[in-house]
Amino acid sequence: MTPVLSGGEIILWEFLGTAVLLLFGVGVVANVILPRSTQDGDTAPWVLIVIGWGVGVFAGASIANPSGGHINPAVTLGLAIAGQTPWANVPFYLIGQFLGAFVGASLAWLVYKLQFDHNREQNTETVGIFATNPPIKKPVWNLVSETIATFVLLLFLLQAPYDSPANYAAVTALVVGIGAALGGPTGYAINPARDLGPRAAYAVLPIPGKGSAQWGYAWVPILGPFIGAALAALVNLVVPAYS
Amino acid sequence: MTPVLSGGEIILWEFLGTAVLLLFGVGVVANVILPRSTQDGDTAPWVLIVIGWGVGVFAGASIANPSGGHINPAVTLGLAIAGQTPWANVPFYLIGQFLGAFVGASLAWLVYKLQFDHNREQNTETVGIFATNPPIKKPVWNLVSETIATFVLLLFLLQAPYDSPANYAAVTALVVGIGAALGGPTGYAINPARDLGPRAAYAVLPIPGKGSAQWGYAWVPILGPFIGAALAALVNLVVPAYS
Amino acid sequence: MTPVLSGGEIILWEFLGTAVLLLFGVGVVANVILPRSTQDGDTAPWVLIVIGWGVGVFAGASIANPSGGHINPAVTLGLAIAGQTPWANVPFYLIGQFLGAFVGASLAWLVYKLQFDHNREQNTETVGIFATNPPIKKPVWNLVSETIATFVLLLFLLQAPYDSPANYAAVTALVVGIGAALGGPTGYAINPARDLGPRAAYAVLPIPGKGSAQWGYAWVPILGPFIGAALAALVNLVVPAYS
Amino acid sequence: MTPVLSGGEIILWEFLGTAVLLLFGVGVVANVILPRSTQDGDTAPWVLIVIGWGVGVFAGASIANPSGGHINPAVTLGLAIAGQTPWANVPFYLIGQFLGAFVGASLAWLVYKLQFDHNREQNTETVGIFATNPPIKKPVWNLVSETIATFVLLLFLLQAPYDSPANYAAVTALVVGIGAALGGPTGYAINPARDLGPRAAYAVLPIPGKGSAQWGYAWVPILGPFIGAALAALVNLVVPAYS
Repeated sequence: MTPVLSGGEIILWEFLGTAVLLLFGVGVVANVILPRSTQDGDTAPWVLIVIGWGVGVFAGASIANPSGGHINPAVTLGLAIAGQTPWANVPFYLIGQFLGAFVGASLAWLVYKLQFDHNREQNTETVGIFATNPPIKKPVWNLVSETIATFVLLLFLLQAPYDSPANYAAVTALVVGIGAALGGPTGYAINPARDLGPRAAYAVLPIPGKGSAQWGYAWVPILGPFIGAALAALVNLVVPAYS
Repeated sequence: MTPVLSGGEIILWEFLGTAVLLLFGVGVVANVILPRSTQDGDTAPWVLIVIGWGVGVFAGASIANPSGGHINPAVTLGLAIAGQTPWANVPFYLIGQFLGAFVGASLAWLVYKLQFDHNREQNTETVGIFATNPPIKKPVWNLVSETIATFVLLLFLLQAPYDSPANYAAVTALVVGIGAALGGPTGYAINPARDLGPRAAYAVLPIPGKGSAQWGYAWVPILGPFIGAALAALVNLVVPAYS
Repeated sequence: MTPVLSGGEIILWEFLGTAVLLLFGVGVVANVILPRSTQDGDTAPWVLIVIGWGVGVFAGASIANPSGGHINPAVTLGLAIAGQTPWANVPFYLIGQFLGAFVGASLAWLVYKLQFDHNREQNTETVGIFATNPPIKKPVWNLVSETIATFVLLLFLLQAPYDSPANYAAVTALVVGIGAALGGPTGYAINPARDLGPRAAYAVLPIPGKGSAQWGYAWVPILGPFIGAALAALVNLVVPAYS
Repeated sequence: MTPVLSGGEIILWEFLGTAVLLLFGVGVVANVILPRSTQDGDTAPWVLIVIGWGVGVFAGASIANPSGGHINPAVTLGLAIAGQTPWANVPFYLIGQFLGAFVGASLAWLVYKLQFDHNREQNTETVGIFATNPPIKKPVWNLVSETIATFVLLLFLLQAPYDSPANYAAVTALVVGIGAALGGPTGYAINPARDLGPRAAYAVLPIPGKGSAQWGYAWVPILGPFIGAALAALVNLVVPAYS
């Protein structure tokens, strides 16, 4: 349930929450990928990845609690279709989310500034720290993966018996599980702002030796999550939820 | 406590919940086993496995909350013997659970379609992504392992002081621990639908270079969990629970 | 707060809970150490170890909820000194705990029977699956480690603001952390029953190629936890708790 | 909300809580770094590190619940600026915290005494067990990393909708995530007492073959967290929180 907020308040809260999400999310991938962080040499980093993104969701959604803790345009769309967020508010949510994602990714770059600079010599590819980048790139099937992963996220949000703020911990568990179970093919954007914001930041930031921002793939992690969220909202409209 | 539902509603909810369970469970094993996922090369995947299955239980049981969140025929049987689910409802539970397991495993295959197709050349064995497959196959002792692991799951469900929906988080912790502690010998089915549904899906799906579905072992992860659940329900009938 | 129970009921509940604790605890170490389990080859097993023991505490204490979920003679002693458990009940607690630990460890052996039998050729040392076995054995300093680790466990139990059943999840987190942070020198018994029961089981069970049960060390993981618990209870008597 | 306590009570509780925090925190790093602990050879220790520090926060803050569970001078400063702790109490908090950190780190050394002594021959560097020690040492950027990481910690504490004692679990999740996502460049002090107390202990304790305590870096993990906390408190003064 979303409290009555002005458009500016929605933008403010979603901006803060999504910035925190991306600070954690881009931060943990930087930690795992860049040489000369304290955890350098760790041979099983995927657990860290799912923890970092999971806590990002928990912290970001909790901080954005006054606006309902969406921090994800696909969540906002799904809730709107399901009748749980007014359509008139959707633009404010999306503005806050995309701006926050850009700023949060940039903050993560500041945190890892020394590692990014040192990477000049090592030339590790860095676009994957900011944006999703599937190991096997075939857009249609990548779209299927993102659609199914986001479908289950929204299905849970709409059908499971958890009210805010307990909901934030429950969704955190879900996102950790999506990372472990469904994140393999695409790197699990499941959130259009999570991918587009950092991709734009990568294109703009002065990162030494940076490569292409791979804009050609950018539509997949936007469209897939929106489709998945819409499908889950349609299920919610015909299937009775718990209450 | 199960609310009053029609047979069709039970089938619907258990179908959805068990499909989500298997989407996560088969997904995480695919992520760990198949080459060219994002976590390829991780040398300690067992933590991911137990996280993936754990979140699958959490998400699936939460989504199936209106029907009590069983998503496991052994749970349904144990609750029926303990007098906490009407026997007349049991067939509806089982239908939903087995259908859901089949569909959820198939969805996980769609998520990892590119990795399965690419695996044609690498020829990694894939039956273990869908069905349990003990490293040392001796049916009687494999049955003992499945029986004891499911016994402790149902003992917890019947004796521990957690009511729904907090119960779903508690059972999630338990299933994570069963995976870590008791999953070594057989891969911990502890749920007849979890094994039979995906095994049937594996037999049917067009997976390149697939091997035998190993139907000769299929009775163990069905019978073991049912025996373990029945034993725990009998303990519950003679030992007072917390309330 | 312990409900009014007969001696037999205390024995029953503590037996069940401690058996479940050891089924998980001995199970997870068997899974990590014995060849040919499903997680064979994992290079970072310590996370699994702390998860397995943590869930063992959670499941065991929850199942033993009617008797207060002690499942640890050091907890019983600490609560008795702090005036939160009647001294007259202490013997019943200890009987249930030591018997349960013996039986739970034996059940874990049944779960891993095939791996234990197959180990005949590989000759991996197996006493460490059942009993604690410090990498550097110097009893006085091992005693210090066990004392401090158990002191902090009881300090938390006596001072932290969690009531049963939420307390079981809180203590689970604590035991996971003790395993990660303080478990290195001795393998963190922090529970006399956890060590003595499985050590006796190891001495008795027909395990192929088994070695010494190392009874010479057995007094350390009994005495250390009792001293640590007593010290924490004394702190509790002079320092006001949260209420 | 801080209850009405005398200065001595504040010192007592914060001392106990911060000592427990450092017992866990220094303990887990000792476990990971020193040879001949039980987890020796584990190749993915960073997950253990974030678990150990996380549980340290949970246990320490819970035990210090009567004084509000600060256990971190940056938290005390942030709450004071935000008007949630009286300025007159701040000195008592800091005294308890710094003393507790010194004593807790010394207790961790006692727990790992045998490993520290055995390390004489191996000569593993040990200052990093006690104090933070960035892989790339450039104070200004290290300061930025510590500032941003502590900013997000305090932002969460001030804005998120969790009241004590649930707050302690929520902050634990946050600190685990900070370790995974933002801990790479500096080792995440995010707490002046966490660094200064153990650094002083390292300088004083009779550790065989110990190196420099690196006092030249000590100001960074003091100043950075204070700046980050102050910034978050300023945000809190202009942005409405949840209530």
